[in-house]
Amino acid sequence: MIKVMISGFNGAMGQNVKNIVEGYEDMKIVCGFDKQSKENEGYPIYSSFDDIKEEIDVVIDFSHFSLVDDLIDFCVKTNTALVCATTGLEDSTNAHLEEASKTIPIFKTGNFSYGISVVSKMLELGAKMLCEDFDTEIIEKHHNRKVDAPSGTAYMLADVIKENADKELEYKFSRYGKDVKREKKDLTIHAVRGGTIVGEHEVIFAGEDEIIEVKHTALSRKVFAVGAVKAGRYIYDKGYGYFEMNDIV
Amino acid sequence: MIKVMISGFNGAMGQNVKNIVEGYEDMKIVCGFDKQSKENEGYPIYSSFDDIKEEIDVVIDFSHFSLVDDLIDFCVKTNTALVCATTGLEDSTNAHLEEASKTIPIFKTGNFSYGISVVSKMLELGAKMLCEDFDTEIIEKHHNRKVDAPSGTAYMLADVIKENADKELEYKFSRYGKDVKREKKDLTIHAVRGGTIVGEHEVIFAGEDEIIEVKHTALSRKVFAVGAVKAGRYIYDKGYGYFEMNDIV
Amino acid sequence: MIKVMISGFNGAMGQNVKNIVEGYEDMKIVCGFDKQSKENEGYPIYSSFDDIKEEIDVVIDFSHFSLVDDLIDFCVKTNTALVCATTGLEDSTNAHLEEASKTIPIFKTGNFSYGISVVSKMLELGAKMLCEDFDTEIIEKHHNRKVDAPSGTAYMLADVIKENADKELEYKFSRYGKDVKREKKDLTIHAVRGGTIVGEHEVIFAGEDEIIEVKHTALSRKVFAVGAVKAGRYIYDKGYGYFEMNDIV
Amino acid sequence: MIKVMISGFNGAMGQNVKNIVEGYEDMKIVCGFDKQSKENEGYPIYSSFDDIKEEIDVVIDFSHFSLVDDLIDFCVKTNTALVCATTGLEDSTNAHLEEASKTIPIFKTGNFSYGISVVSKMLELGAKMLCEDFDTEIIEKHHNRKVDAPSGTAYMLADVIKENADKELEYKFSRYGKDVKREKKDLTIHAVRGGTIVGEHEVIFAGEDEIIEVKHTALSRKVFAVGAVKAGRYIYDKGYGYFEMNDIV
Repeated sequence: MIKVMISGFNGAMGQNVKNIVEGYEDMKIVCGFDKQSKENEGYPIYSSFDDIKEEIDVVIDFSHFSLVDDLIDFCVKTNTALVCATTGLEDSTNAHLEEASKTIPIFKTGNFSYGISVVSKMLELGAKMLCEDFDTEIIEKHHNRKVDAPSGTAYMLADVIKENADKELEYKFSRYGKDVKREKKDLTIHAVRGGTIVGEHEVIFAGEDEIIEVKHTALSRKVFAVGAVKAGRYIYDKGYGYFEMNDIV
Repeated sequence: MIKVMISGFNGAMGQNVKNIVEGYEDMKIVCGFDKQSKENEGYPIYSSFDDIKEEIDVVIDFSHFSLVDDLIDFCVKTNTALVCATTGLEDSTNAHLEEASKTIPIFKTGNFSYGISVVSKMLELGAKMLCEDFDTEIIEKHHNRKVDAPSGTAYMLADVIKENADKELEYKFSRYGKDVKREKKDLTIHAVRGGTIVGEHEVIFAGEDEIIEVKHTALSRKVFAVGAVKAGRYIYDKGYGYFEMNDIV
Repeated sequence: MIKVMISGFNGAMGQNVKNIVEGYEDMKIVCGFDKQSKENEGYPIYSSFDDIKEEIDVVIDFSHFSLVDDLIDFCVKTNTALVCATTGLEDSTNAHLEEASKTIPIFKTGNFSYGISVVSKMLELGAKMLCEDFDTEIIEKHHNRKVDAPSGTAYMLADVIKENADKELEYKFSRYGKDVKREKKDLTIHAVRGGTIVGEHEVIFAGEDEIIEVKHTALSRKVFAVGAVKAGRYIYDKGYGYFEMNDIV
Repeated sequence: MIKVMISGFNGAMGQNVKNIVEGYEDMKIVCGFDKQSKENEGYPIYSSFDDIKEEIDVVIDFSHFSLVDDLIDFCVKTNTALVCATTGLEDSTNAHLEEASKTIPIFKTGNFSYGISVVSKMLELGAKMLCEDFDTEIIEKHHNRKVDAPSGTAYMLADVIKENADKELEYKFSRYGKDVKREKKDLTIHAVRGGTIVGEHEVIFAGEDEIIEVKHTALSRKVFAVGAVKAGRYIYDKGYGYFEMNDIV
């Protein structure tokens, strides 16, 4: 039985994780962690790491970037695996995760959905076969409350393309003016924002009289919770190391 | 029988116009005009306005922005209707066209395709009903040799939306950074460039849990020649005035 | 204060209606109706019409087709407006609604989302301007648990196109074989089913070298609850009559 | 210097092949074959195989299904490689090609565009990773003069998916009725027809709250000529064997 602590228990994503873990027969929630402890739903919910007494195999974390450094320290001290699905981390926190991965299993990725990892694999192939002669552009769409642009996932997909392309590529983020002809090395990322769009990422390879498009659409944020729980089942007994989606696809 | 001169006769668009006019029983080509006079295909092709002796009802022009002022002068002098489908005109040339429309019929539009005028009508309706609560963004796509961005057509459609929306809108052309949350008044236009894409224009109205999209795709530039010939048939006997697609839809 | 009864109170859509009504200051829920009365959440929930004692202005109904005839009888007897958003009604129940509309206000539509009514208006325009020369096809997409195809909304949009087109149109639902060339009068409706897709409806007008597409995407079923509540606010004091989306757009 | 004969020389595709071959420095056209010999453009054009005197390395064929059997016989007799890009072949002609491949190089594929072969590779991957839990549907779009449905390319892509999927799949071609819930094994192919659409093929993998789409759009039929010429360069000196796109991607 895999013993899980959910960090960010009371948030929307924490609740999604709770529902998914409760559906597995070989996993159980032993406690939650949340700074604003509203309800417990039958589980002990802590707001200080010092108070946690339960034995934990893996922490699944959808909390706040300001909390993650303390969480890493807790996991290292208690030798607990950590799936970190909190976004917007500082560079120093990312370095902290890498450092921690020398002693505990850490799982981190730009996008926890299974579909995005499949798209990522397709783009690896596509970039190798297409980027030389085709022009590559990315359109991503998110809701109107998202503060950053482009999305972390758009960058992640762009990186996959850049690493696998047969020619040098350079990211651009707009095209505006009287004399702005496309350059061969452009990989332009367009960030559309509107309404409550959950998340769309589309890569366009446009060539001589033909176009290839690969698109991922998330219909709800639940897909990220599903991926994080899968990641937890994968790393809980791995000893130590830095894992990402490619390892479990 | 409507007597037509094709300006820019030897260009790809001039040749499209030629084929379309030859298909009409009530129109005939009396001559062509072209600075680089390669072939005549049975018609007299002039490279100086002074040499033209034929009687002309309407000029259909797909030439070069540097030529259009002289062409307007010629049309005014000979009292000939002018369909101006040359793109990238200077502001002074646009003013010249408006001035000329006081004595001859002038037809000018941001996009000569029939489909774009239908889309334009749909957006008039959509803007009135949607813009208050929905977020509006435009994605346009063109081939990698296009030098300006966004396209004239994208601006034309944005203007239709802006004029009919129930709230103030402001054009934007990129979204990049850590803290670039969408503002209510944004009407963002994204210009994708790649391969040989002829022309796509898509308007996205994104609201609370629903999205409406209206899209136009041109499969060849022939559609612009078809629209220009239609425009010629419409204005050739109109006396004078400034006409656009709305007049003939 | 508009007094609302929610029929199908405990269903997912009933709960959506509850949350939306609770957000309005000039509406209040006086009771609910549900055959499986699980919880009451502070409101009296009835499972027999005879027991209802509250005064009601309008019933918003997302229940089951087998219940609707009894509900109509109740509304007629108590002179209560009825928004019927239950799907899959028998023809006899539809006739019953029309009959009832002679004495009470009835609101019924193929799709309660505001966006679909806007799309419907756009298609009215599009059909008039495009159907003569363009070929029209519809693609609708829904989740893999939907039992009927095409969707009621696809039929509703097809009807709008058919009524406004300048040529005769005939619905078709497949295209398969060695010799199945498209006929001018075809209006083909394709029903895609997969995963948890909430609902997409796309109309394609394909012509000579240009294509116009109008598309609606629902991201959650909440949009239908929003529309039903809007409908309730519109009809509650209308006396009698048969109302649909066109009346409130 | 690779010596090429173009079969179907005077057709639109034959002319595309001519232009492409003329652009290569290591290929030259030695003659053409065409039943309706209109013009020769400087090359000898034959309408009877017996008259051909030129030495030929490879025939690139975009002709008519009724001609292909005679062409195969000619190639076998003269030991010439054959790229057969004529569509709508009888089963017996396909068998004839396979038989001939025992003595000469034969190249045949469902779709000659490079982009489609890349999409095909992506789908191989996608089918392996997605088909178990996702629902797969294909939408293909072509012009309104196409007589068969679905397209050969749609079948080709469906075959790739079926062969690589982790569950059994069965092709279906429509969905219509009151009780037509999707079955797990359905791989439904929808054939849209309209206007002058050159060719679009889109595969949809729809799962739990996420959708992956892979799409190919041909903007002109020239892409097929490009692929056929590439195929000719690949097989002209191969001795014998049956080759397809996978061999050259």
